Amino acid sequence: MEKINIGMIGYKFMGKAHSHAYRDLPMFFPKHIHPEMKVICGRNPKDVAEAATQFGWQEYTTDWKELIKRDDIDLIDINAPSDVHKEIAIEAAKAGKHVFCEKPLALTLKDSREMLEAVEAAGVKHMVGFNYRFAPAVMLAKKLVDEGRLGEIYHFRAWFLQDWIIDPDFPLVWRLQKEIAGSGSHGDLGAHLIDMAHYLIGDISEVMGMSETFIKERPLPSNMTGLTATGSQGGEKGPVTVDDATLFLARFANGAIGSFEATRFATGHRSTNSFEINGSKGSVIFDFERMNELQVYFVDDKEDVQGFRRVLATDAAHAYSDVWWPAGHTIGYEHTFIHSAVELMEALKEDRQPVPNFHDGVKCQQVLEAVEHSINERSWVDVSKL
Amino acid sequence: MEKINIGMIGYKFMGKAHSHAYRDLPMFFPKHIHPEMKVICGRNPKDVAEAATQFGWQEYTTDWKELIKRDDIDLIDINAPSDVHKEIAIEAAKAGKHVFCEKPLALTLKDSREMLEAVEAAGVKHMVGFNYRFAPAVMLAKKLVDEGRLGEIYHFRAWFLQDWIIDPDFPLVWRLQKEIAGSGSHGDLGAHLIDMAHYLIGDISEVMGMSETFIKERPLPSNMTGLTATGSQGGEKGPVTVDDATLFLARFANGAIGSFEATRFATGHRSTNSFEINGSKGSVIFDFERMNELQVYFVDDKEDVQGFRRVLATDAAHAYSDVWWPAGHTIGYEHTFIHSAVELMEALKEDRQPVPNFHDGVKCQQVLEAVEHSINERSWVDVSKL
Amino acid sequence: MEKINIGMIGYKFMGKAHSHAYRDLPMFFPKHIHPEMKVICGRNPKDVAEAATQFGWQEYTTDWKELIKRDDIDLIDINAPSDVHKEIAIEAAKAGKHVFCEKPLALTLKDSREMLEAVEAAGVKHMVGFNYRFAPAVMLAKKLVDEGRLGEIYHFRAWFLQDWIIDPDFPLVWRLQKEIAGSGSHGDLGAHLIDMAHYLIGDISEVMGMSETFIKERPLPSNMTGLTATGSQGGEKGPVTVDDATLFLARFANGAIGSFEATRFATGHRSTNSFEINGSKGSVIFDFERMNELQVYFVDDKEDVQGFRRVLATDAAHAYSDVWWPAGHTIGYEHTFIHSAVELMEALKEDRQPVPNFHDGVKCQQVLEAVEHSINERSWVDVSKL
Amino acid sequence: MEKINIGMIGYKFMGKAHSHAYRDLPMFFPKHIHPEMKVICGRNPKDVAEAATQFGWQEYTTDWKELIKRDDIDLIDINAPSDVHKEIAIEAAKAGKHVFCEKPLALTLKDSREMLEAVEAAGVKHMVGFNYRFAPAVMLAKKLVDEGRLGEIYHFRAWFLQDWIIDPDFPLVWRLQKEIAGSGSHGDLGAHLIDMAHYLIGDISEVMGMSETFIKERPLPSNMTGLTATGSQGGEKGPVTVDDATLFLARFANGAIGSFEATRFATGHRSTNSFEINGSKGSVIFDFERMNELQVYFVDDKEDVQGFRRVLATDAAHAYSDVWWPAGHTIGYEHTFIHSAVELMEALKEDRQPVPNFHDGVKCQQVLEAVEHSINERSWVDVSKL
Repeated sequence: MEKINIGMIGYKFMGKAHSHAYRDLPMFFPKHIHPEMKVICGRNPKDVAEAATQFGWQEYTTDWKELIKRDDIDLIDINAPSDVHKEIAIEAAKAGKHVFCEKPLALTLKDSREMLEAVEAAGVKHMVGFNYRFAPAVMLAKKLVDEGRLGEIYHFRAWFLQDWIIDPDFPLVWRLQKEIAGSGSHGDLGAHLIDMAHYLIGDISEVMGMSETFIKERPLPSNMTGLTATGSQGGEKGPVTVDDATLFLARFANGAIGSFEATRFATGHRSTNSFEINGSKGSVIFDFERMNELQVYFVDDKEDVQGFRRVLATDAAHAYSDVWWPAGHTIGYEHTFIHSAVELMEALKEDRQPVPNFHDGVKCQQVLEAVEHSINERSWVDVSKL
Repeated sequence: MEKINIGMIGYKFMGKAHSHAYRDLPMFFPKHIHPEMKVICGRNPKDVAEAATQFGWQEYTTDWKELIKRDDIDLIDINAPSDVHKEIAIEAAKAGKHVFCEKPLALTLKDSREMLEAVEAAGVKHMVGFNYRFAPAVMLAKKLVDEGRLGEIYHFRAWFLQDWIIDPDFPLVWRLQKEIAGSGSHGDLGAHLIDMAHYLIGDISEVMGMSETFIKERPLPSNMTGLTATGSQGGEKGPVTVDDATLFLARFANGAIGSFEATRFATGHRSTNSFEINGSKGSVIFDFERMNELQVYFVDDKEDVQGFRRVLATDAAHAYSDVWWPAGHTIGYEHTFIHSAVELMEALKEDRQPVPNFHDGVKCQQVLEAVEHSINERSWVDVSKL
Repeated sequence: MEKINIGMIGYKFMGKAHSHAYRDLPMFFPKHIHPEMKVICGRNPKDVAEAATQFGWQEYTTDWKELIKRDDIDLIDINAPSDVHKEIAIEAAKAGKHVFCEKPLALTLKDSREMLEAVEAAGVKHMVGFNYRFAPAVMLAKKLVDEGRLGEIYHFRAWFLQDWIIDPDFPLVWRLQKEIAGSGSHGDLGAHLIDMAHYLIGDISEVMGMSETFIKERPLPSNMTGLTATGSQGGEKGPVTVDDATLFLARFANGAIGSFEATRFATGHRSTNSFEINGSKGSVIFDFERMNELQVYFVDDKEDVQGFRRVLATDAAHAYSDVWWPAGHTIGYEHTFIHSAVELMEALKEDRQPVPNFHDGVKCQQVLEAVEHSINERSWVDVSKL
Repeated sequence: MEKINIGMIGYKFMGKAHSHAYRDLPMFFPKHIHPEMKVICGRNPKDVAEAATQFGWQEYTTDWKELIKRDDIDLIDINAPSDVHKEIAIEAAKAGKHVFCEKPLALTLKDSREMLEAVEAAGVKHMVGFNYRFAPAVMLAKKLVDEGRLGEIYHFRAWFLQDWIIDPDFPLVWRLQKEIAGSGSHGDLGAHLIDMAHYLIGDISEVMGMSETFIKERPLPSNMTGLTATGSQGGEKGPVTVDDATLFLARFANGAIGSFEATRFATGHRSTNSFEINGSKGSVIFDFERMNELQVYFVDDKEDVQGFRRVLATDAAHAYSDVWWPAGHTIGYEHTFIHSAVELMEALKEDRQPVPNFHDGVKCQQVLEAVEHSINERSWVDVSKL
């Protein structure tokens, strides 16, 4: 059985999701290259040691530079905070390692382009963590578009609605600080929507956006890790430097028009990551909170029974259905990471670039920045000019 | 313009619904016979006079026997309490009037059969008020069954769930007294389900039921009209003599099997009047709270896009759609009565019996009583034996 | 019984809806001023005569100028095409008649302001036909906002999705011609969304929009009335001069942000007229295709049972519920017009302006034009500058 | 770290699900006893060897009797076909092993009682695989019942609808043969509903059922494993000896009434495993196809905002939420097995019987057989008499 030796950097939310993907892969996809969970790396030796044991990594280290140099490592999987993606990815590429990097690729378009140049110069394989592409219901949407079953595309609308910081006393965690997170809802949630648009519809030619920070100051956190944190006792506050919500309108190269909304202030929505496509022959609607379902409509259905169908993407005809459970038995969030890892392993086996890769990461960053420009300039921005 | 002169008895909930149907009919169905709102009849002179003015009747009376004798009346529409249906219908038939009677036709199977005999002997037209047949979404279900698009029928399940008497202090209104109402949820709600089964699937051959009265005593009402009432001040209580819930299993003559549930104790359900049909080629699901919609599934849909479609029965292909509003603009409860009246007027014009008529009323009563027998006998009952 | 004598101009889609409202009103709202259906007016004598009989008007005429002068007319109800609203409304006001005008008030902001000046100068009552305000579920949303139960408002998003012209062979009806219709989806559908925003959230301060015409040429119609038409035989085509879809972003005076989308190219959506509000304490979601329902979420629900509630706005606590049917028995599209008429009658009785009135019509027109400016200028436009 | 050495018998559908549960458990529940995946056992040496490698078992064997005798095995997990459960479980208990047995416990009530006696005599721990209890949304329902938040329970209705054998050419697999499977939809699907009823509501006192086999003959399979099979070439047919659908009515000891339906002929339903509870204070509705959701209704909600809430059971307040992903990120079918394994490990650690155990298995079997008696006798059957 062929194996690929992995070194992973970061062991929080994404590190856990990726670790589990590698752990499950050989059981459900036994014919693929097996990811060997070699070394996990993190800053805190006690915590990373614990994570190694818990997740099933053979070794751990606190020195990512050493890790990258090891001859017995084939691929570096980057789940560290966004502000260190660039340095690690470039160094890893220089060391000849394949790179799997969580989104967003970097904090700026410039940085992401340097990363792409580095992996291309090194000739290594590279992938970016847009996991939502790998929900079978999303893959069905892609199939319907690609086979022309939705016809010419007119509309794409996408919205990623969360409410986890609706409480004004929720503390000023790193995700609310521009210097670490790059942006707020825009880079965190909007990035997923943009990638989905690229995947399903194609290139975006111009954009026009707006953003807002509803709660402008928040309590400084007394500690902060992953997604959770606790407020400071003294009640001292600091400025929120990222957007709470960012919306934008867009034109696609193929003539379709789009609207995008990313917000952390949509009360009642835990993680409504949705899109709708309207074409000349049909439409689809997806909502990640019901990730096994795709609503599908066809213009040419018999005239007395036209309506959106609720397709449960667990039938034999759907992606990965042979691997999981019988029809009607649903899968969850973590499966999108397993499927991502499968694509990575398949690409390595077939000696091709996985998809989505750093090109997709750069393209996403380009739109993110174009939107930011349009917000600052209060006008439309041509994406290709960036 | 041809007209039919109507005398209506009863002016509460159903009287209002029927009056509105006659009032709207000439506007939306101008080519049909027009119902002339001649005389309305009720026991309380002040109230019936007010109803006449409000609803648009030309005259009112408190004497239904006089009303029936009038030469200028062609049709008697009975919306009085169930315990007086029989006498009125038979007298009206004897007087040569057509009869439109609200459901349930009578309190007993025997009575309903006498009513049917009377209208047949008199050679008049007769109709029974199973209004739910006339929702366009239900008519679509019927069409799919009749055209064989659902294939051979395996399952029919129907449930009518309400919660209006969930409060133990809700008073002992007439609908909770066996001598006036005949039965509780069974005759009130179950009757609609049984008629729907007859309409959509066909004859029921045997049944087996159970029923329960959860709240066995209730405050005597200080007054009581229509659906509302207020409890007595003194808190005196009386026994509830009807069923709060009745369930039964059934076999149909065509081999299908069925389950039925009628209850007034389904907390949270205001009026969930639903059915589902499963056939060898497809299925449909209906819920009256979303009465413009029918969920439709076809086995032969392409294998990657199989799922229940939400069909909004307001398209050009659906019943009565030319008369109402553009596609997507929904209609409401009262429209089922307008459509019932349209069927009545059409039948009169074409000199045929309207559907559903007293035959359907008797058939419904037969199943209602068979279920009661099965409850008493704690065993299956052959419907045809009654 | 007090009465108000009505003269109506126009007898197609809206004329029918308004006529039915007046016809139903005295039956369901007997204590209000009664609308007396005096005269209906249209250009085609045969058709208007037929409409008069069918709808229940006492007289008909083809001369709206004569109609306006009649002493026995108190109110002019304008349902004619948008391009003649202005002249009729101003003349009617000058003649001292109250005016109820369908939306959009006029083709331009300037015209609508002249209309407002005219009714104010004349001291008459004026109303504009934003009927969707009068769905009980929408009124519940308004109540929750006004009582502060949603807290501070962060987001308003609204989308009106239709698909009736998705077929490229659908002919070039008047609604697709700028000189008659003013605009396409923007003025037809977007206007309703804008009014809903004004009603529920408040003033819009700035906007930024985009629009698109997907099918740029269509067959010339051989005839055209109301919403339907048939294509020309020869297949000659003409240019579509209105927008198929218009989207815009907005800021509200109170700090909320909004997104709006109106389109006739949302395949599968017959009439999805929807909005969502997210506030600091709660959220609501409305969809006109399920117009009796409001999804409601509260932040302070017990932590283990938080979720959007599907509220059926037919309970005793909801608007107009005493007038219609028991809880769970739904109403339809036409009821929004009946409720509009009730507001008009109540305002006349109480000698106050009805709401929404021409002020709301002008405000809506102002935003519509601001969006058009923003599209032409490709930048944000300050609404108050217009 | 404490460990428990497991020997598993069976490696198909359930064997895979259980294996994965043991594999995932140490990663997500690191503080619990770790299940050591020691030996897997099956009849076909090549296949079981492959399964061992794929699933992560240290060894494999084809001799379950040898396996049971091994000193280094603490627990036997039985996923073999139902007809061999009894022998294995009893032998394992005699050998002093804890036993985790898939449902149904046995083919008959008598057999299941012998199994219970055996494990009790041996003093070992025993568990039965009613995995659906362990969906967090189901656990929320249980919590609401137990805390009295639904009040006195009136109604329980449960339906498990599938359509995998709707095709008459689907072959005669072992699940359609009484001698191996015991029964059809009744024991396969109905058993889950009955256990859910026991878990949520309590003991069932009497039942009355019906069943039907719609397709009475099917092609003999040329081969048959797990859930899939292929029809014989020659088209030879054999009799289906199990029920395609079984329905029954029930009374609970606490006064509630229930209806149950299990069918494999509900066209369009891949795996609709649902229940609804109506109580004096509230109601809940669950559908396994949307297993992360529970619909919840409370009578004491403010009167203008009453309605079923869609609760996504992924919030901090819900079971296992700390272990999985952020709120709104759903889990799938396989997680019910992981949670089952957690209960088993916890019980072992705390030296108590896990729940559900063989008592629950016997109780379920008792109701299954009571229903079969009622079908044969065509009358109500007292469950306690069996």
